[in-house]
Amino acid sequence: MSSRHEGSGALPYRQSRATPDQVRGRPLAGSAVAPSERVRVKRLHERGHYDAETIHPILDAMPICSVGYVFNGSPYVTPTLQWREGGHIYWHGSSASRMLEAVAEAEVCVTVTIMDGFVLARSAFHHSANYRSVMVLGTARKITDRDEKEARLKVFVDSLFPGRWDMLRPMNAQEFKATTVMSLPLAEASAKIRTGGPKDDEEDYKLPIWAGVVPLHMQIGGPIADKLNLAGLAPPAHVTGVKLG
Amino acid sequence: MSSRHEGSGALPYRQSRATPDQVRGRPLAGSAVAPSERVRVKRLHERGHYDAETIHPILDAMPICSVGYVFNGSPYVTPTLQWREGGHIYWHGSSASRMLEAVAEAEVCVTVTIMDGFVLARSAFHHSANYRSVMVLGTARKITDRDEKEARLKVFVDSLFPGRWDMLRPMNAQEFKATTVMSLPLAEASAKIRTGGPKDDEEDYKLPIWAGVVPLHMQIGGPIADKLNLAGLAPPAHVTGVKLG
Repeated sequence: MSSRHEGSGALPYRQSRATPDQVRGRPLAGSAVAPSERVRVKRLHERGHYDAETIHPILDAMPICSVGYVFNGSPYVTPTLQWREGGHIYWHGSSASRMLEAVAEAEVCVTVTIMDGFVLARSAFHHSANYRSVMVLGTARKITDRDEKEARLKVFVDSLFPGRWDMLRPMNAQEFKATTVMSLPLAEASAKIRTGGPKDDEEDYKLPIWAGVVPLHMQIGGPIADKLNLAGLAPPAHVTGVKLG
Repeated sequence: MSSRHEGSGALPYRQSRATPDQVRGRPLAGSAVAPSERVRVKRLHERGHYDAETIHPILDAMPICSVGYVFNGSPYVTPTLQWREGGHIYWHGSSASRMLEAVAEAEVCVTVTIMDGFVLARSAFHHSANYRSVMVLGTARKITDRDEKEARLKVFVDSLFPGRWDMLRPMNAQEFKATTVMSLPLAEASAKIRTGGPKDDEEDYKLPIWAGVVPLHMQIGGPIADKLNLAGLAPPAHVTGVKLG
């Protein structure tokens, strides 16, 4: 699952300049070209993809992300939830979070990883994993405007639980102040994907060793109602119908 | 899900100096004390844990990890698989991987995150997630000794698929050379955990809004045999019985 990401350069990622509707509505050209040398998948480069049509669905399918940043010269990774709107991803947290302070207007590397299965080969060496991962490099921006913050947070809640935002007790001024939202353009991004069965050495196929794939996926369980819910309150459709992706 | 990790200091993490058996066999003291200021959970500090009895099971339950490192002054995060043996975690990859070159004898931050559920509250602000995460800081060491490499890789394969290593076509000299194994002591590590239902503002409990938890977990699917398996080869118990954790 390791990727190699280094060097520098600046080829354009065309999708990032499109509006959300353009990105959603039609494929754009240039999908096979890495937007920069830094995000180009070098090891097993045939697994690399650079088009929005590949990158966006991975981001939309997995809210868990890892935000990498440098603080006092040392690397840090913070797991958090991301969501996408058009050509940007967003994440949020407490305004008191030092992570969010450290990444504001700073370089970050955000990754999203979906593991789809263990790949079992006839030799240890050819064991592998099926996965879909995205890496985004860039400068994180802190959203300070209250209305922009509200618009982004509404998309976050509604992307996971459609229609929930408008059913909630509205956010108040103090809560907006206590919440920081970060944004990152999908300008320098790549996806790395492996699918399919094991690829063994030719002479190993004659061996009586079971090979194949053990699939993995995120399973959503039945909702657990809060004991303090008002009597007779049924879970809304956005709770019973939660899905990832 | 965000953690705050900064500062410096060096309180001992006693477990890291114990042998694997000691770590597995008996609880050691000092579990409530952070091994360093850098890994101390500051925001929502009641969610922080520093004892091997909390940290090890999280690492053992989730092989997917994120390795954060600094390259040319920029942060990078590479998803890969980790495994634990005693007081260390390990990960591996191609010896040609620049990530592995970049992290050898360098500072890294490795995180493992298990998301257990979405927590739906009566206000957007109190929405949360249930999760178990671990952060490990330290200097990654590259394992160069062939026998040590073999011993570690055997544990990796057998920890996921008990007994599989000895059933495989043995690794050859070229494959050992092409494989790099990294190790990181669990000397500076913390866990952050949230469990349970939503915590709402007192006055919001009277609102007719469904609140509760939507559980999430990694589901393992039925094995998919390689079409090139020899006829009549049944999947071994380590394939039909795969579990995480």
